[in-house]
Amino acid sequence: MSKRPSILALCASLLAVGLRAAAQTDPLPSWNDGPAKKAIVEFVQATTTQGSPKFVPPEERIATFDQDGTLWVEDPMYSQVVYCLDRVPAVVNAKPELAKVEPFKTVLSGNREAMAKLSMNDLFKILAATLSGMSVDEFRAEARKWLDTARDTRWKRPYTELTYLPMLEVLKYLRANGYKTYIVTGGGQDFVRVYAEGVYGIPPEQVVGTVGATKYGYDKAGKPVLTKEPKLLLNDDNAGKPEGIHMMIGRRPSAAFGNSIGDRQMLEYTKAGDGARLAMLLLHDDAEREYAYGPARGLPNTKVGTFPQALYDEATKQGWVVIGMKNDWKRVFAFDGGHS
Amino acid sequence: MSKRPSILALCASLLAVGLRAAAQTDPLPSWNDGPAKKAIVEFVQATTTQGSPKFVPPEERIATFDQDGTLWVEDPMYSQVVYCLDRVPAVVNAKPELAKVEPFKTVLSGNREAMAKLSMNDLFKILAATLSGMSVDEFRAEARKWLDTARDTRWKRPYTELTYLPMLEVLKYLRANGYKTYIVTGGGQDFVRVYAEGVYGIPPEQVVGTVGATKYGYDKAGKPVLTKEPKLLLNDDNAGKPEGIHMMIGRRPSAAFGNSIGDRQMLEYTKAGDGARLAMLLLHDDAEREYAYGPARGLPNTKVGTFPQALYDEATKQGWVVIGMKNDWKRVFAFDGGHS
Repeated sequence: MSKRPSILALCASLLAVGLRAAAQTDPLPSWNDGPAKKAIVEFVQATTTQGSPKFVPPEERIATFDQDGTLWVEDPMYSQVVYCLDRVPAVVNAKPELAKVEPFKTVLSGNREAMAKLSMNDLFKILAATLSGMSVDEFRAEARKWLDTARDTRWKRPYTELTYLPMLEVLKYLRANGYKTYIVTGGGQDFVRVYAEGVYGIPPEQVVGTVGATKYGYDKAGKPVLTKEPKLLLNDDNAGKPEGIHMMIGRRPSAAFGNSIGDRQMLEYTKAGDGARLAMLLLHDDAEREYAYGPARGLPNTKVGTFPQALYDEATKQGWVVIGMKNDWKRVFAFDGGHS
Repeated sequence: MSKRPSILALCASLLAVGLRAAAQTDPLPSWNDGPAKKAIVEFVQATTTQGSPKFVPPEERIATFDQDGTLWVEDPMYSQVVYCLDRVPAVVNAKPELAKVEPFKTVLSGNREAMAKLSMNDLFKILAATLSGMSVDEFRAEARKWLDTARDTRWKRPYTELTYLPMLEVLKYLRANGYKTYIVTGGGQDFVRVYAEGVYGIPPEQVVGTVGATKYGYDKAGKPVLTKEPKLLLNDDNAGKPEGIHMMIGRRPSAAFGNSIGDRQMLEYTKAGDGARLAMLLLHDDAEREYAYGPARGLPNTKVGTFPQALYDEATKQGWVVIGMKNDWKRVFAFDGGHS
């Protein structure tokens, strides 16, 4: 035995002291005291305190987060849909014959009213045309460029700033307590991976999303290249979320956070596990600071059915904790004033 | 500012001292000095020494390992194939009509010669019947039970003991230097996940394998259940390996280890990235301590084409490093004597 174990042991003790000191400061300063904040803190303490009957070994600490509407703003339109619409001119430029074909013709017209009437089938055509046919490196570069320049219509800010500060605190708090944090999104896995590490500290391998196939081949110089194909491998929404979690993680999460009917099965699956489980549902009820929709009214027509009252009734029935944005959050965004 | 940063800083210094002390002992004691060992050590030093022109940031340190034949014995038959054959009686018990249908009839006969003549198509039928139709929890329990009791024909040991000690050292050495180690296997992802954590210290979320679909539903008591379906989502072999790596990890590995033609694209894809890249190909040339096959002769008939001379010629061409089991490894298994 060398000196190493004793140095490491000393180090572990010092780390423990450091972590205890950290625990005495509020890990969730943007949250008001209330049942939601209490549920998070109690869950973390119960699952990470050695000797607790609900202790979860570090390697099993998995927490999953829906992205649109749970970690950042999804209204009035998913940012990835905006990206795809913005990409249409470039796609038509490369394939001019599309200019006269629907739904591309309508998108090119710029007529927002006509665009709002496009069907789901039209939308899939647009997604397929704008999200496939290029290498994964080209796709990453295009998406990065768009994220750097695009601005939302209300706050005139990059989409990557429209993250909820209280949820960023939850991510950090869980990670500081040994949890691996995952995004589990209906959005495109490759798209969300472009910014998840910079915005949330979540690396690409911890982003589970809707997956399109790629095809391995070679470019003109003979270098290997992965090309994005218009073939769906996993629709990571609804029942696809627990299926995607099994495929990508292989463990049932201890905690899950969502906000819409697409998260129902993920919350249910998480909560059905043994031991301590935390399932949380974010209610958008703050028309002033963000938006109010679903049971909180003001639901845009395009989203009828996505936030039914029944989902919130189920929260009570299944023991999910509802986060009310209006009352539970002291601040919504990092940029919206308040003390930082 | 509390006391915490200074404690953490002190801790970091102590850890650094500890790691330097550790670095002075040989991290690969089961390897003979030679080009293979040298390549591994130089790669790790080049990519993890701050200020090195080939430095790789910790979050980008990804190393991928084929499993059968690279981390443990694959001869004379993949352990998962043995598992599937062993499961046939239970499957026929549940569905007695299969007893008279091929290929189940042949498997039940126990006639090894007849079984060796089964076609790939027959094998797929057996895999589908034995690897789907149950919940993921039931599958895990069955596989665990088999792994605990099954013994290989040569050493009469559990398959989980047939791991290569030198490769276990490489896994640990890479992890001690901040690498995330992944298995990337043509074997079933759910099967390998059952033992990867215990055997290799590789958690389920770092096992990339051939993926069958699951279906989310409910059991009789109304509890959520994921059922394994006979539907292939990813054939994680050949070109499927880089495709699977992109899907599951989303980054190109810095290092990759394989042993057969099924690993060719993974090695090629890894090596084609910028900066320092390590691609290694294990040659089974040790008939005495393990097996000799491929260019080293003694290739079982069932595997013709899997280890062609052309693969080893390509290693030279592409700058992959060949590991010769006979000369590069001081010891092969933890149980085969030698000093531990």
